[in-house]
Amino acid sequence: MSLYTSHNPVFATFSFYAALLIIKTLFVAFLTGWTRFRKHAFQNPEDCNKMNRGKVKIDEDVERVRRAHLNDLENILPFLTIAFVYVGTGPSLGCAKFLFRLFTAARFMHTLVYAVFVIPQPARALAFFGGMMANLYMIYAIVTTYASGF
Amino acid sequence: MSLYTSHNPVFATFSFYAALLIIKTLFVAFLTGWTRFRKHAFQNPEDCNKMNRGKVKIDEDVERVRRAHLNDLENILPFLTIAFVYVGTGPSLGCAKFLFRLFTAARFMHTLVYAVFVIPQPARALAFFGGMMANLYMIYAIVTTYASGF
Amino acid sequence: MSLYTSHNPVFATFSFYAALLIIKTLFVAFLTGWTRFRKHAFQNPEDCNKMNRGKVKIDEDVERVRRAHLNDLENILPFLTIAFVYVGTGPSLGCAKFLFRLFTAARFMHTLVYAVFVIPQPARALAFFGGMMANLYMIYAIVTTYASGF
Repeated sequence: MSLYTSHNPVFATFSFYAALLIIKTLFVAFLTGWTRFRKHAFQNPEDCNKMNRGKVKIDEDVERVRRAHLNDLENILPFLTIAFVYVGTGPSLGCAKFLFRLFTAARFMHTLVYAVFVIPQPARALAFFGGMMANLYMIYAIVTTYASGF
Repeated sequence: MSLYTSHNPVFATFSFYAALLIIKTLFVAFLTGWTRFRKHAFQNPEDCNKMNRGKVKIDEDVERVRRAHLNDLENILPFLTIAFVYVGTGPSLGCAKFLFRLFTAARFMHTLVYAVFVIPQPARALAFFGGMMANLYMIYAIVTTYASGF
Repeated sequence: MSLYTSHNPVFATFSFYAALLIIKTLFVAFLTGWTRFRKHAFQNPEDCNKMNRGKVKIDEDVERVRRAHLNDLENILPFLTIAFVYVGTGPSLGCAKFLFRLFTAARFMHTLVYAVFVIPQPARALAFFGGMMANLYMIYAIVTTYASGF
Protein backbone atom coordinates (compact mmCIF):
# COMPACT_ATOMS: atom_id res chain seq x y z
CA MET A 1 0.00 0.00 0.00
CA SER A 2 1.37 3.39 -0.97
CA LEU A 3 2.10 5.92 1.75
CA TYR A 4 1.58 8.72 -0.78
CA THR A 5 -2.15 9.31 -0.33
CA SER A 6 -4.14 12.00 1.45
CA HIS A 7 -5.38 9.29 3.85
CA ASN A 8 -1.85 9.06 5.31
CA PRO A 9 -1.63 11.87 7.91
CA VAL A 10 2.16 12.06 7.41
CA PHE A 11 1.68 12.80 3.71
CA ALA A 12 -1.08 15.32 4.53
CA THR A 13 1.34 17.06 6.92
CA PHE A 14 4.07 17.06 4.26
CA SER A 15 1.65 18.55 1.71
CA PHE A 16 0.63 21.32 4.10
CA TYR A 17 4.16 22.40 5.09
CA ALA A 18 5.43 22.11 1.50
CA ALA A 19 2.74 24.61 0.44
CA LEU A 20 3.60 26.90 3.37
CA LEU A 21 7.33 26.88 2.54
CA ILE A 22 6.73 27.54 -1.16
CA ILE A 23 4.39 30.47 -0.49
CA LYS A 24 7.11 31.91 1.76
CA THR A 25 9.68 31.53 -1.04
CA LEU A 26 7.36 33.17 -3.58
CA PHE A 27 6.81 36.02 -1.09
CA VAL A 28 10.55 36.75 -1.22
CA ALA A 29 10.23 37.11 -5.02
CA PHE A 30 7.57 39.78 -4.46
CA LEU A 31 9.76 41.42 -1.79
CA THR A 32 12.57 41.68 -4.37
CA GLY A 33 10.20 43.35 -6.84
CA TRP A 34 8.89 45.73 -4.19
CA THR A 35 12.44 46.67 -3.10
CA ARG A 36 13.42 47.30 -6.74
CA PHE A 37 10.55 49.78 -7.10
CA ARG A 38 11.29 51.39 -3.73
CA LYS A 39 14.98 51.89 -4.57
CA HIS A 40 14.42 52.48 -8.33
CA ALA A 41 17.01 49.76 -9.06
CA PHE A 42 16.33 47.36 -11.94
CA GLN A 43 18.26 44.78 -13.93
CA ASN A 44 16.91 45.37 -17.44
CA PRO A 45 16.64 48.58 -19.51
CA GLU A 46 13.08 47.58 -20.53
CA ASP A 47 12.00 47.64 -16.85
CA CYS A 48 12.89 51.32 -16.38
CA ASN A 49 10.46 54.08 -17.27
CA LYS A 50 9.46 57.59 -16.20
CA MET A 51 6.78 56.34 -13.85
CA ASN A 52 9.04 54.12 -11.70
CA ARG A 53 12.07 56.45 -12.18
CA GLY A 54 14.10 53.23 -12.55
CA LYS A 55 17.76 52.89 -13.48
CA VAL A 56 19.82 49.79 -14.26
CA LYS A 57 21.89 49.66 -11.09
CA ILE A 58 22.90 47.44 -8.21
CA ASP A 59 21.36 48.30 -4.85
CA GLU A 60 22.53 46.71 -1.60
CA ASP A 61 18.99 46.38 -0.19
CA VAL A 62 17.86 44.55 -3.32
CA GLU A 63 20.95 42.31 -3.26
CA ARG A 64 20.23 41.34 0.35
CA VAL A 65 16.72 40.15 -0.54
CA ARG A 66 18.14 38.30 -3.56
CA ARG A 67 20.67 36.51 -1.33
CA ALA A 68 17.85 35.45 1.00
CA HIS A 69 15.95 34.18 -2.05
CA LEU A 70 18.91 32.17 -3.37
CA ASN A 71 19.46 30.71 0.10
CA ASP A 72 15.82 29.58 0.02
CA LEU A 73 16.37 27.83 -3.31
CA GLU A 74 19.48 26.14 -1.90
CA ASN A 75 17.68 24.84 1.21
CA ILE A 76 13.91 24.71 0.70
CA LEU A 77 13.95 23.05 -2.73
CA PRO A 78 16.16 20.15 -1.50
CA PHE A 79 13.88 19.87 1.58
CA LEU A 80 10.84 19.34 -0.64
CA THR A 81 12.34 16.17 -2.16
CA ILE A 82 14.00 15.01 1.08
CA ALA A 83 10.78 15.33 3.07
CA PHE A 84 8.77 13.63 0.31
CA VAL A 85 11.14 10.64 0.17
CA TYR A 86 11.25 10.61 3.99
CA VAL A 87 7.43 10.17 4.07
CA GLY A 88 8.00 6.92 2.13
CA THR A 89 10.23 5.51 4.89
CA GLY A 90 7.11 5.35 7.09
CA PRO A 91 8.10 7.64 10.00
CA SER A 92 5.78 8.19 12.98
CA LEU A 93 3.45 11.16 12.62
CA GLY A 94 4.94 12.83 15.70
CA CYS A 95 8.50 12.61 14.43
CA ALA A 96 7.64 13.81 10.92
CA LYS A 97 5.56 16.68 12.27
CA PHE A 98 8.40 17.78 14.55
CA LEU A 99 10.92 17.80 11.67
CA PHE A 100 8.62 19.59 9.19
CA ARG A 101 7.71 22.22 11.80
CA LEU A 102 11.34 22.72 12.86
CA PHE A 103 12.41 23.24 9.23
CA THR A 104 9.47 25.55 8.44
CA ALA A 105 10.01 27.66 11.58
CA ALA A 106 13.76 27.89 10.87
CA ARG A 107 13.24 29.06 7.27
CA PHE A 108 10.56 31.63 8.17
CA MET A 109 13.00 32.91 10.80
CA HIS A 110 15.81 32.97 8.23
CA THR A 111 13.83 35.24 5.90
CA LEU A 112 12.76 37.58 8.72
CA VAL A 113 16.33 37.83 10.05
CA TYR A 114 18.05 38.17 6.64
CA ALA A 115 15.71 40.12 4.38
CA VAL A 116 13.02 41.81 6.48
CA PHE A 117 14.48 43.05 9.80
CA VAL A 118 18.27 42.55 9.33
CA ILE A 119 18.99 41.15 12.80
CA PRO A 120 22.68 40.71 13.86
CA GLN A 121 24.42 37.33 13.89
CA PRO A 122 24.22 34.62 15.16
CA ALA A 123 20.46 34.89 14.42
CA ARG A 124 20.83 33.97 10.73
CA ALA A 125 23.38 31.24 11.43
CA LEU A 126 21.04 29.64 13.98
CA ALA A 127 18.09 29.74 11.54
CA PHE A 128 20.27 28.24 8.79
CA PHE A 129 21.54 25.39 10.97
CA GLY A 130 18.07 24.69 12.39
CA GLY A 131 16.83 23.93 8.89
CA MET A 132 20.01 22.11 7.92
CA MET A 133 19.76 19.78 10.95
CA ALA A 134 16.23 18.71 9.94
CA ASN A 135 17.42 18.02 6.37
CA LEU A 136 20.49 16.06 7.49
CA TYR A 137 18.48 13.94 9.93
CA MET A 138 15.98 12.98 7.21
CA ILE A 139 18.79 12.19 4.74
CA TYR A 140 20.31 9.89 7.36
CA ALA A 141 16.94 8.13 7.82
CA ILE A 142 16.53 7.75 4.04
CA VAL A 143 20.02 6.39 3.38
CA THR A 144 19.77 3.80 6.18
CA THR A 145 16.25 2.74 5.10
CA TYR A 146 17.11 2.42 1.41
CA ALA A 147 20.73 1.25 1.66
CA SER A 148 19.64 -1.81 -0.36
CA GLY A 149 18.86 0.60 -3.23
CA PHE A 150 22.56 1.31 -3.80
CA MET B 1 -5.99 4.16 -3.30
CA SER B 2 -3.11 6.36 -4.31
CA LEU B 3 -3.66 9.08 -6.90
CA TYR B 4 0.02 8.84 -7.85
CA THR B 5 -0.18 6.22 -10.60
CA SER B 6 -0.04 6.41 -14.38
CA HIS B 7 -3.68 5.19 -14.41
CA ASN B 8 -4.76 8.54 -12.94
CA PRO B 9 -5.07 10.91 -15.94
CA VAL B 10 -4.36 13.91 -13.67
CA PHE B 11 -1.01 12.40 -12.67
CA ALA B 12 -0.26 11.52 -16.32
CA THR B 13 -0.93 15.16 -17.25
CA PHE B 14 1.30 16.37 -14.42
CA SER B 15 4.09 14.03 -15.58
CA PHE B 16 3.85 15.28 -19.15
CA TYR B 17 3.92 19.01 -18.33
CA ALA B 18 6.66 18.54 -15.71
CA ALA B 19 8.87 16.97 -18.40
CA LEU B 20 8.01 19.78 -20.84
CA LEU B 21 8.86 22.50 -18.32
CA ILE B 22 12.13 20.87 -17.33
CA ILE B 23 13.28 20.43 -20.92
CA LYS B 24 12.53 24.14 -21.43
CA THR B 25 14.66 25.01 -18.37
CA LEU B 26 17.54 22.81 -19.58
CA PHE B 27 17.28 24.52 -22.98
CA VAL B 28 18.05 27.86 -21.27
CA ALA B 29 21.24 26.27 -19.88
CA PHE B 30 22.29 25.43 -23.45
CA LEU B 31 21.32 28.94 -24.57
CA THR B 32 23.68 30.36 -21.90
CA GLY B 33 26.52 28.17 -23.20
CA TRP B 34 25.80 29.12 -26.80
CA THR B 35 25.72 32.85 -25.93
CA ARG B 36 29.03 32.51 -24.05
CA PHE B 37 30.68 31.06 -27.18
CA ARG B 38 29.04 33.64 -29.45
CA LYS B 39 30.22 36.56 -27.28
CA HIS B 40 33.52 34.88 -26.19
CA ALA B 41 32.58 35.59 -22.56
CA PHE B 42 33.33 32.92 -19.95
CA GLN B 43 33.43 32.63 -16.17
CA ASN B 44 36.49 30.42 -15.66
CA PRO B 45 40.08 30.73 -16.94
CA GLU B 46 40.07 27.01 -17.85
CA ASP B 47 37.13 27.56 -20.24
CA CYS B 48 39.06 30.03 -22.43
CA ASN B 49 41.33 28.84 -25.24
CA LYS B 50 42.56 29.95 -28.65
CA MET B 51 39.82 28.12 -30.47
CA ASN B 52 36.89 29.87 -28.74
CA ARG B 53 38.83 33.14 -28.32
CA GLY B 54 37.29 33.32 -24.85
CA LYS B 55 38.01 35.82 -22.08
CA VAL B 56 36.84 35.90 -18.46
CA LYS B 57 34.40 38.78 -18.72
CA ILE B 58 30.82 39.79 -18.05
CA ASP B 59 28.61 40.18 -21.11
CA GLU B 60 25.15 41.73 -20.94
CA ASP B 61 23.62 39.22 -23.42
CA VAL B 62 24.92 36.31 -21.32
CA GLU B 63 23.67 37.93 -18.10
CA ARG B 64 20.19 38.33 -19.60
CA VAL B 65 19.97 34.60 -20.36
CA ARG B 66 21.28 33.81 -16.87
CA ARG B 67 18.58 36.02 -15.30
CA ALA B 68 15.93 34.15 -17.32
CA HIS B 69 17.44 30.87 -16.09
CA LEU B 70 17.43 31.94 -12.44
CA ASN B 71 13.83 33.12 -12.80
CA ASP B 72 12.99 29.62 -14.08
CA LEU B 73 14.58 28.05 -11.01
CA GLU B 74 12.61 30.44 -8.79
CA ASN B 75 9.26 29.63 -10.42
CA ILE B 76 9.34 26.28 -12.25
CA LEU B 77 11.03 24.28 -9.47
CA PRO B 78 8.41 25.36 -6.86
CA PHE B 79 5.69 24.57 -9.44
CA LEU B 80 6.94 20.98 -9.75
CA THR B 81 6.28 20.29 -6.05
CA ILE B 82 3.12 22.42 -5.88
CA ALA B 83 1.56 20.68 -8.89
CA PHE B 84 2.57 17.25 -7.56
CA VAL B 85 0.98 17.89 -4.16
CA TYR B 86 -2.04 19.44 -5.90
CA VAL B 87 -2.58 16.15 -7.80
CA GLY B 88 -3.02 14.49 -4.38
CA THR B 89 -5.93 16.80 -3.49
CA GLY B 90 -7.96 15.03 -6.22
CA PRO B 91 -8.78 17.93 -8.57
CA SER B 92 -10.89 17.41 -11.68
CA LEU B 93 -8.93 16.60 -14.84
CA GLY B 94 -10.24 19.72 -16.57
CA CYS B 95 -9.18 22.06 -13.79
CA ALA B 96 -5.72 20.51 -13.40
CA LYS B 97 -5.15 20.53 -17.17
CA PHE B 98 -6.14 24.20 -17.36
CA LEU B 99 -3.70 25.15 -14.56
CA PHE B 100 -0.77 23.08 -15.89
CA ARG B 101 -1.28 24.44 -19.41
CA LEU B 102 -1.60 28.03 -18.18
CA PHE B 103 1.64 27.73 -16.19
CA THR B 104 3.50 25.99 -19.03
CA ALA B 105 2.37 28.53 -21.63
CA ALA B 106 3.28 31.43 -19.31
CA ARG B 107 6.81 30.10 -18.68
CA PHE B 108 7.52 29.34 -22.36
CA MET B 109 6.36 32.88 -23.08
CA HIS B 110 8.58 34.23 -20.27
CA THR B 111 11.70 32.65 -21.81
CA LEU B 112 10.86 33.86 -25.32
CA VAL B 113 10.16 37.40 -24.10
CA TYR B 114 13.15 37.63 -21.73
CA ALA B 115 16.00 35.66 -23.28
CA VAL B 116 15.23 35.00 -26.95
CA PHE B 117 13.45 38.00 -28.52
CA VAL B 118 13.74 40.70 -25.81
CA ILE B 119 10.18 42.05 -26.13
CA PRO B 120 9.29 45.31 -24.24
CA GLN B 121 7.32 45.33 -21.01
CA PRO B 122 4.65 44.51 -19.90
CA ALA B 123 5.17 41.25 -21.87
CA ARG B 124 7.51 39.73 -19.29
CA ALA B 125 5.45 40.95 -16.32
CA LEU B 126 2.32 39.33 -17.82
CA ALA B 127 4.14 36.02 -18.40
CA PHE B 128 5.51 36.11 -14.84
CA PHE B 129 2.12 36.80 -13.26
CA GLY B 130 0.37 34.21 -15.44
CA GLY B 131 2.60 31.51 -13.97
CA MET B 132 2.42 32.98 -10.47
CA MET B 133 -1.41 32.97 -10.51
CA ALA B 134 -1.47 29.23 -11.33
CA ASN B 135 0.99 28.55 -8.49
CA LEU B 136 -0.91 30.67 -5.96
CA TYR B 137 -4.25 29.07 -6.86
CA MET B 138 -2.83 25.56 -6.33
CA ILE B 139 -1.22 26.57 -3.03
CA TYR B 140 -4.61 27.87 -1.87
CA ALA B 141 -6.25 24.55 -2.83
CA ILE B 142 -3.52 22.57 -1.00
CA VAL B 143 -3.64 24.62 2.21
CA THR B 144 -7.44 24.42 2.45
CA THR B 145 -7.45 20.66 1.68
CA TYR B 146 -4.70 19.78 4.14
CA ALA B 147 -5.39 22.38 6.86
CA SER B 148 -5.74 19.42 9.25
CA GLY B 149 -2.03 18.68 8.58
CA PHE B 150 -0.97 21.79 10.48
CA MET C 1 -1.21 -0.28 -7.89
CA SER C 2 1.08 2.64 -7.25
CA LEU C 3 4.77 2.34 -8.15
CA TYR C 4 5.58 4.89 -5.44
CA THR C 5 6.12 2.56 -2.50
CA SER C 6 9.23 1.29 -0.73
CA HIS C 7 8.29 -2.24 -1.96
CA ASN C 8 9.15 -1.15 -5.52
CA PRO C 9 12.93 -1.55 -5.84
CA VAL C 10 13.02 1.17 -8.54
CA PHE C 11 11.49 3.67 -6.08
CA ALA C 12 13.87 2.51 -3.33
CA THR C 13 16.80 3.12 -5.71
CA PHE C 14 15.44 6.56 -6.59
CA SER C 15 15.08 7.41 -2.89
CA PHE C 16 18.65 6.37 -2.16
CA TYR C 17 20.29 8.31 -5.00
CA ALA C 18 18.08 11.36 -4.38
CA ALA C 19 19.38 11.47 -0.79
CA LEU C 20 22.98 11.02 -1.98
CA LEU C 21 22.69 13.84 -4.53
CA ILE C 22 21.09 16.21 -2.05
CA ILE C 23 23.73 15.58 0.60
CA LYS C 24 26.37 16.34 -2.04
CA THR C 25 24.60 19.62 -2.88
CA LEU C 26 24.37 20.59 0.81
CA PHE C 27 28.08 19.78 1.15
CA VAL C 28 28.83 22.48 -1.45
CA ALA C 29 26.96 24.97 0.75
CA PHE C 30 29.30 24.09 3.62
CA LEU C 31 32.29 24.35 1.25
CA THR C 32 31.18 27.90 0.38
CA GLY C 33 31.04 28.81 4.07
CA TRP C 34 34.40 27.23 4.76
CA THR C 35 36.01 29.07 1.81
CA ARG C 36 34.52 32.37 3.02
CA PHE C 37 36.16 31.91 6.43
CA ARG C 38 39.46 30.77 4.86
CA LYS C 39 39.60 33.80 2.53
CA HIS C 40 37.92 36.22 5.02
CA ALA C 41 35.43 37.16 2.26
CA PHE C 42 31.79 37.65 3.24
CA GLN C 43 28.64 39.09 1.67
CA ASN C 44 27.06 40.85 4.64
CA PRO C 45 28.48 43.42 7.08
CA GLU C 46 26.89 41.50 10.00
CA ASP C 47 28.96 38.40 9.10
CA CYS C 48 32.30 40.19 9.62
CA ASN C 49 33.91 40.46 13.04
CA LYS C 50 37.33 40.64 14.66
CA MET C 51 37.50 36.89 15.18
CA ASN C 52 37.05 35.90 11.51
CA ARG C 53 38.84 39.05 10.24
CA GLY C 54 36.12 39.18 7.57
CA LYS C 55 35.51 41.90 4.99
CA VAL C 56 32.64 42.37 2.53
CA LYS C 57 34.48 41.48 -0.67
CA ILE C 58 34.34 39.22 -3.70
CA ASP C 59 36.87 36.40 -3.76
CA GLU C 60 37.49 34.27 -6.86
CA ASP C 61 37.80 31.01 -4.86
CA VAL C 62 34.45 31.66 -3.18
CA GLU C 63 32.84 32.57 -6.52
CA ARG C 64 34.06 29.29 -8.05
CA VAL C 65 32.36 27.25 -5.32
CA ARG C 66 29.20 29.35 -5.72
CA ARG C 67 29.18 28.66 -9.48
CA ALA C 68 29.46 24.92 -8.78
CA HIS C 69 26.57 25.26 -6.32
CA LEU C 70 24.34 27.12 -8.79
CA ASN C 71 25.14 24.51 -11.45
CA ASP C 72 23.96 21.85 -8.98
CA LEU C 73 20.67 23.70 -8.48
CA GLU C 74 20.26 23.95 -12.28
CA ASN C 75 20.86 20.23 -12.86
CA ILE C 76 20.25 18.19 -9.70
CA LEU C 77 16.93 19.80 -8.73
CA PRO C 78 15.40 19.12 -12.19
CA PHE C 79 16.78 15.54 -11.98
CA LEU C 80 14.90 14.95 -8.72
CA THR C 81 11.53 15.55 -10.40
CA ILE C 82 12.52 13.92 -13.71
CA ALA C 83 13.73 10.74 -11.99
CA PHE C 84 10.65 10.65 -9.76
CA VAL C 85 8.25 10.93 -12.71
CA TYR C 86 10.41 8.41 -14.64
CA VAL C 87 9.85 5.85 -11.83
CA GLY C 88 6.12 6.13 -12.61
CA THR C 89 6.68 5.04 -16.23
CA GLY C 90 7.61 1.59 -14.89
CA PRO C 91 11.20 1.23 -16.16
CA SER C 92 13.22 -1.95 -15.55
CA LEU C 93 15.32 -1.89 -12.38
CA GLY C 94 18.53 -2.34 -14.40
CA CYS C 95 17.83 0.59 -16.67
CA ALA C 96 16.76 2.94 -13.85
CA LYS C 97 19.77 1.96 -11.74
CA PHE C 98 22.13 2.63 -14.67
CA LEU C 99 20.66 6.11 -15.26
CA PHE C 100 20.59 7.11 -11.57
CA ARG C 101 24.18 5.91 -11.08
CA LEU C 102 25.39 7.64 -14.25
CA PHE C 103 23.81 10.93 -13.16
CA THR C 104 25.10 10.64 -9.57
CA ALA C 105 28.64 9.77 -10.67
CA ALA C 106 28.64 12.62 -13.20
CA ARG C 107 27.53 15.19 -10.61
CA PHE C 108 29.99 14.05 -7.93
CA MET C 109 32.68 14.31 -10.63
CA HIS C 110 31.42 17.78 -11.59
CA THR C 111 31.84 19.08 -8.04
CA LEU C 112 35.30 17.55 -7.64
CA VAL C 113 36.47 18.93 -10.98
CA TYR C 114 34.91 22.38 -10.59
CA ALA C 115 35.10 23.30 -6.91
CA VAL C 116 37.52 20.98 -5.13
CA PHE C 117 40.51 20.14 -7.38
CA VAL C 118 40.04 22.60 -10.33
CA ILE C 119 40.91 20.13 -13.11
CA PRO C 120 41.36 21.50 -16.70
CA GLN C 121 38.72 21.13 -19.39
CA PRO C 122 37.19 19.02 -20.90
CA ALA C 123 36.77 17.30 -17.48
CA ARG C 124 33.95 19.60 -16.37
CA ALA C 125 32.24 19.57 -19.76
CA LEU C 126 32.24 15.74 -19.75
CA ALA C 127 30.77 15.62 -16.22
CA PHE C 128 28.12 18.17 -17.20
CA PHE C 129 27.08 16.29 -20.36
CA GLY C 130 27.10 12.92 -18.58
CA GLY C 131 24.42 14.18 -16.21
CA MET C 132 22.57 16.01 -18.97
CA MET C 133 22.37 12.86 -21.13
CA ALA C 134 20.71 10.91 -18.27
CA ASN C 135 18.20 13.74 -17.77
CA LEU C 136 17.39 14.05 -21.48
CA TYR C 137 16.93 10.28 -21.89
CA MET C 138 14.46 10.18 -18.97
CA ILE C 139 12.56 13.21 -20.31
CA TYR C 140 12.25 11.41 -23.67
CA ALA C 141 10.87 8.31 -21.91
CA ILE C 142 8.38 10.43 -19.92
CA VAL C 143 7.10 12.43 -22.88
CA THR C 144 6.55 9.32 -25.04
CA THR C 145 4.86 7.44 -22.16
CA TYR C 146 2.56 10.29 -21.18
CA ALA C 147 1.96 11.87 -24.60
CA SER C 148 -1.76 11.27 -23.95
CA GLY C 149 -1.47 13.71 -21.02
CA PHE C 150 -1.01 16.64 -23.42
